[in-house]
Amino acid sequence: MLTWLDDIAFDANGLVTVIAQDATTHRILMVAWANRQAVEETARTQQAVYWSRSRGKLWRKGEESGHRQHVRELRLDCDGDCLLYVVEQAGGMACHTGRESCFYRALDGAAWKTVDPVLKDPKLIYR
Amino acid sequence: MLTWLDDIAFDANGLVTVIAQDATTHRILMVAWANRQAVEETARTQQAVYWSRSRGKLWRKGEESGHRQHVRELRLDCDGDCLLYVVEQAGGMACHTGRESCFYRALDGAAWKTVDPVLKDPKLIYR
Repeated sequence: MLTWLDDIAFDANGLVTVIAQDATTHRILMVAWANRQAVEETARTQQAVYWSRSRGKLWRKGEESGHRQHVRELRLDCDGDCLLYVVEQAGGMACHTGRESCFYRALDGAAWKTVDPVLKDPKLIYR
Repeated sequence: MLTWLDDIAFDANGLVTVIAQDATTHRILMVAWANRQAVEETARTQQAVYWSRSRGKLWRKGEESGHRQHVRELRLDCDGDCLLYVVEQAGGMACHTGRESCFYRALDGAAWKTVDPVLKDPKLIYR
């Protein structure tokens, strides 16, 4: 049963890197970790679930912010140690800063420059 | 000098996760690691450089296959522990299997299914 989970090369901590990509804009929204339980629940519920290393527990994306991710597709890379969640991002933002993507800084000469706008004040997201 | 490198949260092994995304197709091509030297060289030369954990040395993408990656943009995520290389992929393929992307398997029911074609026989890539 669920042998597809055995094809994933979880690391020594039982985790795998996960990229979330927006199905519509194709932006890379965020990168996080998942354990076996998180991946299984994601596939079963079609809602993105991660493992929060800082909190040491399952992280059902959007459970606080409301910015859930409906997972359209799961992909696995060639060496099996990285997963891709192709998602529909509720609210159009994945980052805790209120931006669409966590990758909102671009290298500009010798400094990182913020190039993406804040769509919603984080104080209004996390109440 | 190069203080932008200090904004990157390299892990205990001195590495950071790097995603390569195709600037044109927006496909996620691959995920790999980079150390400080690899990131510095990438920014300076605009050619993607990674750190090969298996070989324990700098990996100038395409040095064997010819499938180099011209880096148009570098992005950093909100917590600084993941980089994005937005690239023009020489040969239109990044994966050692001869496919465009390393993420060529999609979950189909209870199994991973290969959904992307091989564009070139790997035996012809690595000679």
